[in-house]
Amino acid sequence: MITTNKIIRDPIHGDIKLEGLFLDLIEAPEIQRLYDIKQLGFAHLVFPGAHHTRLEHSLGTYHMAQKAAEKIDLKKDEREIIACAAILHDIGHGPFSHTLEFILRDTLSADHVDLTEKLIFGEHVIFNKKEKEFIISPSVFEILNKHSIEQKEIANIIRGKTNKKQYLGQLLTSPVDVDQLDYLIRDSYYTGVAYGMIDIERFLQTLIIYDYQLAVRKKGVGVLENILMARNLMYSSVYFHKTVRIAELMLSKAIEKIEDADPFEFFKMTDGELLNDLKKKGPFQYEIATRLKYRKLFKQAYATSRSTLDKSGIDIIKKLEKLKYRREKEQEFEETLNLPSGHIIIDIPSYELTQAEPRIKQTDIKIVDENKIKRLDDFTPVAKAIRSRDIPEWIVMIVTDEKYKDIVSKNAEKILFG
Amino acid sequence: MITTNKIIRDPIHGDIKLEGLFLDLIEAPEIQRLYDIKQLGFAHLVFPGAHHTRLEHSLGTYHMAQKAAEKIDLKKDEREIIACAAILHDIGHGPFSHTLEFILRDTLSADHVDLTEKLIFGEHVIFNKKEKEFIISPSVFEILNKHSIEQKEIANIIRGKTNKKQYLGQLLTSPVDVDQLDYLIRDSYYTGVAYGMIDIERFLQTLIIYDYQLAVRKKGVGVLENILMARNLMYSSVYFHKTVRIAELMLSKAIEKIEDADPFEFFKMTDGELLNDLKKKGPFQYEIATRLKYRKLFKQAYATSRSTLDKSGIDIIKKLEKLKYRREKEQEFEETLNLPSGHIIIDIPSYELTQAEPRIKQTDIKIVDENKIKRLDDFTPVAKAIRSRDIPEWIVMIVTDEKYKDIVSKNAEKILFG
Amino acid sequence: MITTNKIIRDPIHGDIKLEGLFLDLIEAPEIQRLYDIKQLGFAHLVFPGAHHTRLEHSLGTYHMAQKAAEKIDLKKDEREIIACAAILHDIGHGPFSHTLEFILRDTLSADHVDLTEKLIFGEHVIFNKKEKEFIISPSVFEILNKHSIEQKEIANIIRGKTNKKQYLGQLLTSPVDVDQLDYLIRDSYYTGVAYGMIDIERFLQTLIIYDYQLAVRKKGVGVLENILMARNLMYSSVYFHKTVRIAELMLSKAIEKIEDADPFEFFKMTDGELLNDLKKKGPFQYEIATRLKYRKLFKQAYATSRSTLDKSGIDIIKKLEKLKYRREKEQEFEETLNLPSGHIIIDIPSYELTQAEPRIKQTDIKIVDENKIKRLDDFTPVAKAIRSRDIPEWIVMIVTDEKYKDIVSKNAEKILFG
Amino acid sequence: MITTNKIIRDPIHGDIKLEGLFLDLIEAPEIQRLYDIKQLGFAHLVFPGAHHTRLEHSLGTYHMAQKAAEKIDLKKDEREIIACAAILHDIGHGPFSHTLEFILRDTLSADHVDLTEKLIFGEHVIFNKKEKEFIISPSVFEILNKHSIEQKEIANIIRGKTNKKQYLGQLLTSPVDVDQLDYLIRDSYYTGVAYGMIDIERFLQTLIIYDYQLAVRKKGVGVLENILMARNLMYSSVYFHKTVRIAELMLSKAIEKIEDADPFEFFKMTDGELLNDLKKKGPFQYEIATRLKYRKLFKQAYATSRSTLDKSGIDIIKKLEKLKYRREKEQEFEETLNLPSGHIIIDIPSYELTQAEPRIKQTDIKIVDENKIKRLDDFTPVAKAIRSRDIPEWIVMIVTDEKYKDIVSKNAEKILFG
Repeated sequence: MITTNKIIRDPIHGDIKLEGLFLDLIEAPEIQRLYDIKQLGFAHLVFPGAHHTRLEHSLGTYHMAQKAAEKIDLKKDEREIIACAAILHDIGHGPFSHTLEFILRDTLSADHVDLTEKLIFGEHVIFNKKEKEFIISPSVFEILNKHSIEQKEIANIIRGKTNKKQYLGQLLTSPVDVDQLDYLIRDSYYTGVAYGMIDIERFLQTLIIYDYQLAVRKKGVGVLENILMARNLMYSSVYFHKTVRIAELMLSKAIEKIEDADPFEFFKMTDGELLNDLKKKGPFQYEIATRLKYRKLFKQAYATSRSTLDKSGIDIIKKLEKLKYRREKEQEFEETLNLPSGHIIIDIPSYELTQAEPRIKQTDIKIVDENKIKRLDDFTPVAKAIRSRDIPEWIVMIVTDEKYKDIVSKNAEKILFG
Repeated sequence: MITTNKIIRDPIHGDIKLEGLFLDLIEAPEIQRLYDIKQLGFAHLVFPGAHHTRLEHSLGTYHMAQKAAEKIDLKKDEREIIACAAILHDIGHGPFSHTLEFILRDTLSADHVDLTEKLIFGEHVIFNKKEKEFIISPSVFEILNKHSIEQKEIANIIRGKTNKKQYLGQLLTSPVDVDQLDYLIRDSYYTGVAYGMIDIERFLQTLIIYDYQLAVRKKGVGVLENILMARNLMYSSVYFHKTVRIAELMLSKAIEKIEDADPFEFFKMTDGELLNDLKKKGPFQYEIATRLKYRKLFKQAYATSRSTLDKSGIDIIKKLEKLKYRREKEQEFEETLNLPSGHIIIDIPSYELTQAEPRIKQTDIKIVDENKIKRLDDFTPVAKAIRSRDIPEWIVMIVTDEKYKDIVSKNAEKILFG
Repeated sequence: MITTNKIIRDPIHGDIKLEGLFLDLIEAPEIQRLYDIKQLGFAHLVFPGAHHTRLEHSLGTYHMAQKAAEKIDLKKDEREIIACAAILHDIGHGPFSHTLEFILRDTLSADHVDLTEKLIFGEHVIFNKKEKEFIISPSVFEILNKHSIEQKEIANIIRGKTNKKQYLGQLLTSPVDVDQLDYLIRDSYYTGVAYGMIDIERFLQTLIIYDYQLAVRKKGVGVLENILMARNLMYSSVYFHKTVRIAELMLSKAIEKIEDADPFEFFKMTDGELLNDLKKKGPFQYEIATRLKYRKLFKQAYATSRSTLDKSGIDIIKKLEKLKYRREKEQEFEETLNLPSGHIIIDIPSYELTQAEPRIKQTDIKIVDENKIKRLDDFTPVAKAIRSRDIPEWIVMIVTDEKYKDIVSKNAEKILFG
Repeated sequence: MITTNKIIRDPIHGDIKLEGLFLDLIEAPEIQRLYDIKQLGFAHLVFPGAHHTRLEHSLGTYHMAQKAAEKIDLKKDEREIIACAAILHDIGHGPFSHTLEFILRDTLSADHVDLTEKLIFGEHVIFNKKEKEFIISPSVFEILNKHSIEQKEIANIIRGKTNKKQYLGQLLTSPVDVDQLDYLIRDSYYTGVAYGMIDIERFLQTLIIYDYQLAVRKKGVGVLENILMARNLMYSSVYFHKTVRIAELMLSKAIEKIEDADPFEFFKMTDGELLNDLKKKGPFQYEIATRLKYRKLFKQAYATSRSTLDKSGIDIIKKLEKLKYRREKEQEFEETLNLPSGHIIIDIPSYELTQAEPRIKQTDIKIVDENKIKRLDDFTPVAKAIRSRDIPEWIVMIVTDEKYKDIVSKNAEKILFG
């Protein structure tokens, strides 16, 4: 008997059924690699349950896309295409998910979506040369060809840009989309932080297509407020938790200091491969990899919030958003305080946050009330409050080796703001 | 202000509080290494949520030990010592938990408990030489010294052997112990398989010490039946799931075929380190590591259950329990069918199961009824039924590369049973 | 716009959707009355969360029937008919569910299924005469007519007796059916006793129709063991909890002692109506109603288990199964010990258990293995063990007012066994 | 052996342990009566799981009080007194909880807290005269005497007014208190509406006493935002759900139209008693009781929101807040449209909401940051947004019998606003 479908047990959504195209996709090496890409980078160093991966999130997003497509009664071919984009939307993620993206952005003005696109279009190969000998599974590109799926269409949905049928792109990439539905509840489940336990069923009930746009019925305003708030609280308490952030900064610094690093080569790796590879790249990289393994992290030596700064302070922060200037400042610290290279890191998180997750400040969801389109702000003051809420609480943070903490603390303001 | 305690959020038990001795232990490199030892080896290849690690299980067992100690009203020093044994009981686990233990058993007649003991006694160092440069945290051995904890006492509890106060050892290692309370519910949570969702509170309510033995009050018979059944069902459907087992057999074979391997060197590694190290050990090892990375597993070519075999068949199985004879048989397959070395594996799981988890067949729990000790079998026929229940369903299985599956299938019985 | 469907939020199954026929049925007075029939009688006196009602269980059973019908791919008309039987299967339940059924059985040789049937066939009206003035909603009988549903077919499914298509009856009434799937998990949820938290999805995945019979695929053996065990444990610890049982016995006694009571009149009432009506029926009934309101229950004065009795003891228990003989014995107690009438009750639960829930001892589920039908006992020793497991632990119990407890205790054996 | 403690299984908090004073209190008739007072009035007519009662909420609040007292390290006697107030805080609730309170307010300028106080002080007896014959359990007043607990102190805590130790009152009655911790999560659990699933442990971790005031550490800002939002969303979607509100209005109207009703007599009843008693009070009351039993509710004929009204409209709403004027308006409707008395009800919910739950608009929680007291508004814009958020969405609603719905709809604006 030929197996024509497969049922996978997901702790969040229960049984997830795959058949046809999706049965092929789940076997593709680009998807299988996600088994070793942690969804939340180093969050497990603070929340020890958070070892979940992009693979299960990809499955979950696929499942949410199917559910949503059913609720808004999409046609069969639209369902297939949105579910396909959903299962593939994260294949371009590098090791530790968002952690290393700033490098892509800085060196190639690219991000994980660009890499996802390259993989979908077959312009990039996920294998190491040698691996290819042993694994003959078709790539995502080849599978899409076999099933006559237009790669361009998938890429457009992942970018949230679908010409006429805007609802397709919006389902996967918009202020409230199926990607978020899955990750909020999944991250809550594995961290044990309840904020993200949103009411998915209630949200899906209120979805509607209006003039080719994805919209929400008026009765969905409450569940929208709930989701927006949940997302914000998860960012404050999990994704931008101070200790998690420090581990990410350490890894970033170690990668950045590798000479002649090819960003794409790093991006193809898994979490495990990167940490092991790092040890071969030099003593600083060896140190960081070892520290991450045994959780001997740098400490926060200085931090301040937006409200404590005056205009000139804010201007300096503004300048520090530029990587180049930030690195110069770090060098100034190293030289002034006589610290070994790489042992001081300046963090300006807000810039990176809005780069990595532009949806966090977006609340422009269309509400359908009595057959007219209105704005969420017409119904609740909460959306606006969320837009102006600070994440994380620090606007600048300096981290360093525990043994330099005191000296950095004492001199931080002076060096930073002159 | 000095931080004198730390609260860790666990998705299963909620907030877990650590102070004093335990605050030190949680920072020890032997514990931190467990962040990258998956609790269930390769179970995530079937249950994609099952990435949880020995670190969180160690925390959970510590927490369960504290709770149980409170319920049976242990004295302060006993509570400390049982909690200490609980948090340390798994530090000797090698990468992928139980997967590689047969090697220790076969080459050194040792297991993970022996290694745990060596680490506690300071007879073994968890670091690679080079790592030691960067990490100066005290070892478990040193921390126990600092807090004047007798290493011997901890080791005895972990072995379930405590002279007079037998209840101490029984709390951690006996037919129903706090180790199992944690892992059943934790494995259920992360796999999404509900069987292990036992009623921990109800069980703890019924615990009692009777004549220096840990026992259960009569009203606890129901919850005991529930736990025994849960454990059995988790073994059948998760721990000995066919596909999980195949991945484990593949890794074992790859390790076994490394020449001059030092078992202890492997045991010190993390999951990630082992998979990466494997690629350097030869082409067969490279192949297996790559197959595991992309989930291109061997397939079951043959399997049979106990009930289908006659006396002579059972005798052959008995002989195959010996690793040496099994390897000879595998070679016979390779030569007869002209298969490349390492591409056929014979599995005789029952022997390994009872070696790895002797508790699975144990139901001899003491029941206190009207101030007398009785046996669980006096109260329910379920315990006996569980003892005679088969796990897994196959008594012998042969796995091989997909492309040799047919030829192996056809010839299996003949070669196996002559 | 006309509302053509309704979505009801159930804490167990999430959103439940109703349309067409089911939208009408949910408004029928026979269904609405179930809002005030507690699913577990007096279980809330022990488990304070257990206030859930037959209404939500009826909805849940309907939902489970829809899910099961989808899994085994029933045709549209079969789906409708099984879902219809599911939503109606409990409309004949009297107040406090099973509590008063022994009266129907004793006086009319009838049970709640007979009353359900009468309501479906329109032979009985749920209203009081006066209520009918205010409520003009069509009855279940009329709604079925309107939608051209054969009443006979519904009744047959509820009895588990469907000629050719035996699977239809088996879906709702057989050793493991959708009725149980719902009540096990629902009763667990509201009592907080985890035993009933079965894996519904996994069970439904394994269902198959084989030769017009409902059967389970071999891979479903584990989940079946889990369900059978769950059911047994829920009976021991919840449904036949001693205190719950005492409250039920008290109510039964109060009803029984009403002169010229019309059983059907009682059965039409809701829980609230019965408790209020009782106060008007005489001083003993007033006392019992007041005791139940303030939870001043009778106490267990004597109990013994099967294993403590010899042959002649068992023979006497056998005789006591007859209500008439039991009442004579109670009178003997009252006269010998000079107790006021009604203040002593003898309980022989096993007879009543098998009358009320014959499924509890049934484990004859058909297993399909390699396209052949086998028995569950061929795969696991657990089923047999469950059949021989005692529920509850007492074979006879005597309860009385707290102030007579001592004197009854002292004389119980003598009076009971002569 | 004497039972010295009792363990009650709660589906929300797990095992709850009672001993000493609390073992006595739980047996008091005032507490036992709460077994038949639904926590959420008629919410089960929309959310069929919502049958939970004030009894389990009282236990849960007691449990939360114990936990909070432990976290902020209260002394033994303070713990006892706060737990005692917690378990008693709702004994004055009438049938269907808040539904009938407007009558107390209107006729006696009293509310359920006043009645609670009378019961604590022994100034009121919970029994009917006849019941007293059968139940000799001591009252709450007597139990407090027996255990030498000052009744006055308990009453002060329930009112949130404790002279010096303000934190005691604040624990039970303040913008975020243990009462709300329990009801938010409990109401979520039984309705299946996830909004109230707050993170209780995290909140309790952040509690601190500062200058005799209950305060929250800065790190608790996120969980506070979560709780405030949860409370608001539960009000919008559950407590003030339109259909739930209509059922409440119907019952209120039925009670109000009883001549010479003694409010205290009604307040002593249980839900079941009230519904049964109602049928004896006249044909209108019989009709309403029957409609509620079979869920044949009045319909919304008109509703408008604040934003659609001009100044003069708002002024009229203001006037309608007075019961007397509202009743006159209803009479005008009846006379103008020739409707039977009692079949039209005008609802002005906001006034009643702030009377019944003043905490809903309160967000003035003290935050401790760097050893200084600050306001929640200093840390997040969300608190302010919540204060200005409308609950429910209608500022005025008119409900009537389905058959008069059209005529009322057509004439509503004209009659209402002239």
